Amino acid sequence: MTAMPDLAAIEARDAADPLRHMRDRFVLPQGVIYLDGNSLGAAPKEAFAELDKAAKEEWAQGLIRSWNHAGWFDLALQLGDKVGRLIGAGPGETVVCDTTSTNIYKALQAALSMRPGRSVIVAEGDSFPTDLYMAEGVASTRPDVKIRLEGVDADNIEDLIDDSVAVVLVNHVNYKSGILRDMAALTAKAHAAGALIVWDLCHTAGALPVELNAANADMAVGCTYKYLNGGPGAPAFIYAARRHHEQIRQPLSGWWGHARPFAFTQGYEPGAGITRFLCGTQPVLSLRALKGSLDVWDEVDLNALRKKSIELTELFIELVEATCGEFGVKLEGTRDPNRRGSQVSFSHENAYEIMQALIDRGVIGDFRAPNVMRFGFTPLYVGYRDVWEAVATLRDILATGAWQDTRFAVRAAVT
Amino acid sequence: MTAMPDLAAIEARDAADPLRHMRDRFVLPQGVIYLDGNSLGAAPKEAFAELDKAAKEEWAQGLIRSWNHAGWFDLALQLGDKVGRLIGAGPGETVVCDTTSTNIYKALQAALSMRPGRSVIVAEGDSFPTDLYMAEGVASTRPDVKIRLEGVDADNIEDLIDDSVAVVLVNHVNYKSGILRDMAALTAKAHAAGALIVWDLCHTAGALPVELNAANADMAVGCTYKYLNGGPGAPAFIYAARRHHEQIRQPLSGWWGHARPFAFTQGYEPGAGITRFLCGTQPVLSLRALKGSLDVWDEVDLNALRKKSIELTELFIELVEATCGEFGVKLEGTRDPNRRGSQVSFSHENAYEIMQALIDRGVIGDFRAPNVMRFGFTPLYVGYRDVWEAVATLRDILATGAWQDTRFAVRAAVT
Repeated sequence: MTAMPDLAAIEARDAADPLRHMRDRFVLPQGVIYLDGNSLGAAPKEAFAELDKAAKEEWAQGLIRSWNHAGWFDLALQLGDKVGRLIGAGPGETVVCDTTSTNIYKALQAALSMRPGRSVIVAEGDSFPTDLYMAEGVASTRPDVKIRLEGVDADNIEDLIDDSVAVVLVNHVNYKSGILRDMAALTAKAHAAGALIVWDLCHTAGALPVELNAANADMAVGCTYKYLNGGPGAPAFIYAARRHHEQIRQPLSGWWGHARPFAFTQGYEPGAGITRFLCGTQPVLSLRALKGSLDVWDEVDLNALRKKSIELTELFIELVEATCGEFGVKLEGTRDPNRRGSQVSFSHENAYEIMQALIDRGVIGDFRAPNVMRFGFTPLYVGYRDVWEAVATLRDILATGAWQDTRFAVRAAVT
Repeated sequence: MTAMPDLAAIEARDAADPLRHMRDRFVLPQGVIYLDGNSLGAAPKEAFAELDKAAKEEWAQGLIRSWNHAGWFDLALQLGDKVGRLIGAGPGETVVCDTTSTNIYKALQAALSMRPGRSVIVAEGDSFPTDLYMAEGVASTRPDVKIRLEGVDADNIEDLIDDSVAVVLVNHVNYKSGILRDMAALTAKAHAAGALIVWDLCHTAGALPVELNAANADMAVGCTYKYLNGGPGAPAFIYAARRHHEQIRQPLSGWWGHARPFAFTQGYEPGAGITRFLCGTQPVLSLRALKGSLDVWDEVDLNALRKKSIELTELFIELVEATCGEFGVKLEGTRDPNRRGSQVSFSHENAYEIMQALIDRGVIGDFRAPNVMRFGFTPLYVGYRDVWEAVATLRDILATGAWQDTRFAVRAAVT
């Protein structure tokens, strides 16, 4: 077994880290190394301040008046633009609302209505499952719609895209393997066949610079509770390129997406621009926690973020392979950092028990069936020494067989 | 102009009010009489405590572990049952999730799939508009579906229900007039024609005892941020009678409604019972504020609530008519308290300006186009003296012409 590298060299990297000061913007529990911010991001202090103000001042004291006076009506668009900067969207192209699943449904329905005569949805067999479930939901009331899956109907998604395809629904980074797709290339391929493309950014928004407009993407969705640190179940976002706004029609046509919601008239008329993706009244308290986090994000240089993210994941892979390889731990996904998101997965036949033992010692990652340990690296609050300590703990658990303790074998649901 | 009645008699009613102690559970601003709790309920102190705990302990310290350890996964069903008690549902028949608009869409789609061969949705022309917009959304991707409207296609909704009707979508209380429908009678009428019925309870949940199961209702939806005091944009609820659960299919088939969401398998399988109406990850912080409020509701006797509600609305009508009638204020809706929700509307050609003048003096109601002043009476925190003072203020504004101040003529969006 190779020894762990010198800790002083690791600490020097933390000292030189231009993002190091961002760590102070977050609350993290004592004794925890948190490598699961790709599932639920840590809490920014600003989120607490926003929540407190929204609840105790605006709700309790302002009451109904706060819809106007405290800007609650504007939050969905205001936060949309903050997310937009992080995903390469222009102003007014992104709105925060509802859930990723619901927004996938809207995007798929909009795409189908924009490609009359085409009835195929292309998706990935190893997609995060809700994307597929929502495509099934769309097809359930539109008997003409067919779904083609990469890994089922062909090995490569490119081979499924032809002139019967209305829309391609694809994850920018795979939730389990961490593999990053080439957005510009696949978008061009879809467009060459006359299809639209919807990008699921759940595992890239806030993880690396996303360039939707530069890639000529059509629509995108994603969540805000992972890398964006918006809080548990924080509302999701949806993006559409401005060139499509006028043509977008989607069936979740609630009053918040109406051109004049307070005219209380019969007959739906879609609102201007991206607002036509809104449906019902949004959860203001959860939105305000998200605002607290996005205010922090406003200060982040995404290129510095990506640079540190790659360094963290490279260091983690290097240390795990050097010190834990002999115990049957195997890298999943890719060795190429340019094809990887900000997460790393290793497989082991006892991945579940090992992850429970890690969590028991304060190193929190997660398990994905059947045999994957997944570790997320969130550069705003994870440092180089955290990586070193996480690997040292993993090595000890493997070397001592500590994971064989029976209390680590009881399975519970995790996100 | 009739004089206002003796204040001592009014105060004696407050002193004898069995719900009076509930007022202490809420924070209300100094100098405000809040008659808009039917639009956004006041803030219960317990909501702040829940929010604080969820944010600062469970999110910040528990992180991803709180999905299991803090019971976040169970909130949608747990809160659903708390709402269920207030609307006459049995355990496991109600779930809290998403928005009223989205839940209307799910309910209508489920009803259509349960009545193959029928393609008509019956609704009300003077419905809260989002109900109609969602019906339009359903019809937009199902060309066979037709919508019939009361007030457009016939004067009475009963005359629109025949054996081509799949589902009747109806508001239990009209948002503008406050008129209460007979749930048992209309449900029986729909069933006699073989149709299903979906009740929108936005203006009755928490306003009066609702008896869904006793009325043999099929499905219901509603919001939690009005009488239920869940906070701005708090997640909505959806109910389905247990007898329908096995047959329910709805196209917003996201992973939270899957039978085994953490198996991460291809192929949607609807979850057990009411959970199949869930779709995506719910906003936990907003749910927890709602939990704080519903914990207060657990203690409320709905018959006492209804008794006080009727007394408040009767007193308000009596005082307004006696002291403000000469200024052109006219009762809208019904004079029969048994056919009225917990709100009263008066029309006046200058309703907008008068309402602004009322709000300026701390009496908060709301305006509904074109000429309605709407006042909600929430028995948990509104008392008899509040009614007296609100009417005295209204009378003064009318008698002095104070509403003619130009600053009250600028229109802003209100919910």
